[in-house]
Amino acid sequence: MNQISLTPQLKFSKIVHGYWRLAEWNLSNQELLKLIQQTQELGITTFDHADIYGNYSCEKLFGDALALKPSLRQNIQIVTKCGIKLATDKFPTRSINSYDYSYHHIISTVESSLNNFKTDYIDVLLLHRPSPFFNPEEVAKAFNELKQHGKVLNFGVSNFTPQQFEMLSSYVEMPLVTNQVEISPYCLEHFDNGNIDYFLNKRIKPMAWSPLAGGKLIKPTTEKEHRIVKTLKEIATELEVENIDTVIYAWLLAHPSQIIPVVGSRHIERIKNAMNALKITMSTEQWLKIYIASVGKNLP
Amino acid sequence: MNQISLTPQLKFSKIVHGYWRLAEWNLSNQELLKLIQQTQELGITTFDHADIYGNYSCEKLFGDALALKPSLRQNIQIVTKCGIKLATDKFPTRSINSYDYSYHHIISTVESSLNNFKTDYIDVLLLHRPSPFFNPEEVAKAFNELKQHGKVLNFGVSNFTPQQFEMLSSYVEMPLVTNQVEISPYCLEHFDNGNIDYFLNKRIKPMAWSPLAGGKLIKPTTEKEHRIVKTLKEIATELEVENIDTVIYAWLLAHPSQIIPVVGSRHIERIKNAMNALKITMSTEQWLKIYIASVGKNLP
Amino acid sequence: MNQISLTPQLKFSKIVHGYWRLAEWNLSNQELLKLIQQTQELGITTFDHADIYGNYSCEKLFGDALALKPSLRQNIQIVTKCGIKLATDKFPTRSINSYDYSYHHIISTVESSLNNFKTDYIDVLLLHRPSPFFNPEEVAKAFNELKQHGKVLNFGVSNFTPQQFEMLSSYVEMPLVTNQVEISPYCLEHFDNGNIDYFLNKRIKPMAWSPLAGGKLIKPTTEKEHRIVKTLKEIATELEVENIDTVIYAWLLAHPSQIIPVVGSRHIERIKNAMNALKITMSTEQWLKIYIASVGKNLP
Repeated sequence: MNQISLTPQLKFSKIVHGYWRLAEWNLSNQELLKLIQQTQELGITTFDHADIYGNYSCEKLFGDALALKPSLRQNIQIVTKCGIKLATDKFPTRSINSYDYSYHHIISTVESSLNNFKTDYIDVLLLHRPSPFFNPEEVAKAFNELKQHGKVLNFGVSNFTPQQFEMLSSYVEMPLVTNQVEISPYCLEHFDNGNIDYFLNKRIKPMAWSPLAGGKLIKPTTEKEHRIVKTLKEIATELEVENIDTVIYAWLLAHPSQIIPVVGSRHIERIKNAMNALKITMSTEQWLKIYIASVGKNLP
Repeated sequence: MNQISLTPQLKFSKIVHGYWRLAEWNLSNQELLKLIQQTQELGITTFDHADIYGNYSCEKLFGDALALKPSLRQNIQIVTKCGIKLATDKFPTRSINSYDYSYHHIISTVESSLNNFKTDYIDVLLLHRPSPFFNPEEVAKAFNELKQHGKVLNFGVSNFTPQQFEMLSSYVEMPLVTNQVEISPYCLEHFDNGNIDYFLNKRIKPMAWSPLAGGKLIKPTTEKEHRIVKTLKEIATELEVENIDTVIYAWLLAHPSQIIPVVGSRHIERIKNAMNALKITMSTEQWLKIYIASVGKNLP
Repeated sequence: MNQISLTPQLKFSKIVHGYWRLAEWNLSNQELLKLIQQTQELGITTFDHADIYGNYSCEKLFGDALALKPSLRQNIQIVTKCGIKLATDKFPTRSINSYDYSYHHIISTVESSLNNFKTDYIDVLLLHRPSPFFNPEEVAKAFNELKQHGKVLNFGVSNFTPQQFEMLSSYVEMPLVTNQVEISPYCLEHFDNGNIDYFLNKRIKPMAWSPLAGGKLIKPTTEKEHRIVKTLKEIATELEVENIDTVIYAWLLAHPSQIIPVVGSRHIERIKNAMNALKITMSTEQWLKIYIASVGKNLP
C-alpha cells in the first residue's frame, strides 16, 4: 500500500505533492486538473499548500482546477498552512513580513482557504513557522472552533522545535498530527536539533519539505553538494536505479521515523522518480554512507 | 489591575522594583522609605533583592528603611536570592567567586536575609544561578524546612535552563513559581534556548532582569544597539509615547508568557515610564519589528 | 562500602575497570587473571567491554582468563556494548565504519559476546553510540528477547543525548540503567548539553569514559591542559594527595549525579590511585576551581 496513517482516521499517500510553485507553472485549469489526475494515478492523494504560496494565489488555482471535477475532493487530502503575513502588493498596509497566530487571523485565513479551494473542509491545517510572539491560548481557541465547525479536520505545525511542539500540545485538545520540516541528504538540521528523536519518541510522522534541497542535489555546485551527489550516484548504481532523486526519496522513506516527502515538481517524470523509491530497499550501510557524505566526516 | 498571579496565593505587581544598585544610591533610611512609598503609590508592591547585592549590604539597607514603617511589610512582596559566594573583603577566606547550594548554605543565607530585612518571612527565595555542582536533594531538604518553618513562602530560580528547572522540580515538593532571566529587546537568549517555550508550556511567569539591557538601549553605541533604538523610537512615535523605555517595558509586558520586568532605577520618573507601559497596547507587528531589529535580519 | 546501586538488583563497584586497550597489553591468560584478581582485592567488581575493542578481540581475551577460574563470574559484573560495525580485516565486505541497531545485529552480537566471555549472561548491555538511523522498535524487540532468555540482565546506552535516551525509554519495557559518556575535568560537554541535569532528573547514574581525558591531563601540552593540571596540583596539595589522577577521580566521584569512572589502565598502581579517591572529601569550592580551570573563565 502506498498510504501512511497519521492518526487512525487520517491517511496520507506516502509521497505528497507540493504546490509551492504552482503559480509559476502557468497551467490552465484543465492542464492542472490533468496533472492532479496523473499524480493520483501514480498513487498520490495528498496535496500540500499554504495560504501565501504564489503571493496568495496557489490555493485558488488548485481550487479552480478541482471545481472542474468536484468528485475528486473526497479522494484527496488537502494540507494548507497559516500564520505568515507577507508584505506584498496584495497587502499594501503591511510594512514587513511578519507572523500572526491570533485567533482572528487563523480563523479568517482558514475561511479564505476554504473559499480558494471551494471546499467545506481542510484535511490538515499547519502553523507555518514558529513565532517568538505566540499565544497558545488563542491558537487553541481557534483550533477548537475550526474543529467543532468541521472546517479543519486535523492540525499540525511546520518548522517547530520539539520545545515548541511540546508547548503547543499542552494547550490544544487534539493531537498535532505532523511537523513539516526541511529534511534532505543536504539538510540534516533536524537530526542535530533533537527533532528526529522527538518524532520517534512521540510517534509523529514528519513531512519533509525541500527533499531535493531546492535543486542543490540535482545541480551541485559546492564541494559538499558534489560529495553528496557522488555518493548518491554510487548508491544508485548499487540499487540499479536510474535517477539520484529516486535514491534521495528512498533515503527519506527508509528512515524509521517514517518521513513523508513533499515533492515539488510539476513534471510527472520527476514525480514518478519519487514514487519509484517506494519499491526500493536501502541498506542501513547505504543510508549511513549518504549521511556521512553530507556531514563530510566518518561516524565517531 | 496592576497585579499578576504567580500562584493562587502569590500576587506580584506587574512591574517589580529591583535593588541591585541600592548601595550606590547613597540614600538615608528616610529617603529610601520615601522611594519605597512613592513606588507603592505607583502600584509597585514587589521588591527584588539578593543576598550579594551591594557586596552583601542592600538587604540590610532595605530592612532599615522598612523598620521605620513596619506596617508596610504586609503589603509588599520581598524576593531575594541565594547561592552565589563572592570572594570579597567580607569573606577574606574565599579565594574565588563560587556557588554553594548545600543545605547549610541555603539555610544560613535565609537566616541572614531575615535578619537584614527584619522580617519573619521571605515571599520568594530564588536560587541565583545554576551550578555545575548542584545537589538537588540538599536543596529540597532546605526548601522543605524553610517552608515548614514559614521562613520562606515560595521558591523559584534564576538563570536556569528548562533542563535545570525540570530537574529541580522533580526533587522539590512545591512548585517553582518563577525563573528570573535576562530578557530585553537586546537580549533574546531565552527565545533561542527554549526557555520562553518552556515558560508557556509550564505556565511559569518569568521575571526579566536587565530589561533595558544595562543601559545599552538608553545610550546605544554598537550598530545593533542603534538599530534597536531606531526601531524603538519609530514605535514610540506610532504609540504616541514619549520615552523608549516605556516602549521596551510594553514590549516585555505584551508577550504571552506574561513577563514581569524588574526595573532597576532609583529615579521615580524612570519607574513611572515603566508603569506607563501598562496602559499601552502594542500590535504583534510592532512587537516583531523590535525583535527583527535586534536579530538584524527578517523573519524566515 | 565501595558499591553503588544502579537498580535495586544491580550493584557496580564505584570504580569500574575498562578493557578498551586489553589487546595492547599483551598479557597471558594467567597474567590477566592475576590483574583481575588484584583489582578485585582493591574492591573492583565491574568490568567494561565492547564487542569492537581490540578489533573484536578483547572480550575473548577476558573470557579466556575468566575460564581459568570460573568461580569469579558470580562475583563480577560484565558490561559490554554493541552497535558499531568496524570495517576491519575481520569484516572485509564492510566498506565503512557504520552502526547497526537492527534486531538481528543486536541478537547476533550478544550471542558472540556470550561465546567470547564463556558466560551465560551479560550483566549490562549498552548501545555504543546513537545513530541517525535508529529503529527503536527493533531495539525493543531485541532487548525483550534477550531479557526473557536471561542472556542480558540489564540494558543501557552510551554517548546518548537526553532526547535520545528519552526516545528509546519510550519504546523499551525495562529501565535503561545508565548512559556511559565522556566526563573529565577536560571534557565538560555533558555539563553543557543538558545530560548531567537529565541524569539528576531521572536518577540515572552515568558511567564516565576517559576520566583522564585520554592522558591529556597526565601529559599536558595545550594551555588548557596546563591550566587544569596546575589547579589539580594545587588541590592535590590541599588534600594531601600524591597523584593528580586521584584528584581527578575524586572530582568525578564527588559530583551529586554519582558518576562511575571507568579506569582504563593496566597498571595496578594507577588503579590504586583511582580507588584512593573514594577516601577523599573534596569541597564544593575545590570542585568548582577545577571546573573553572577547564572553562578558562570565572563563573558568571
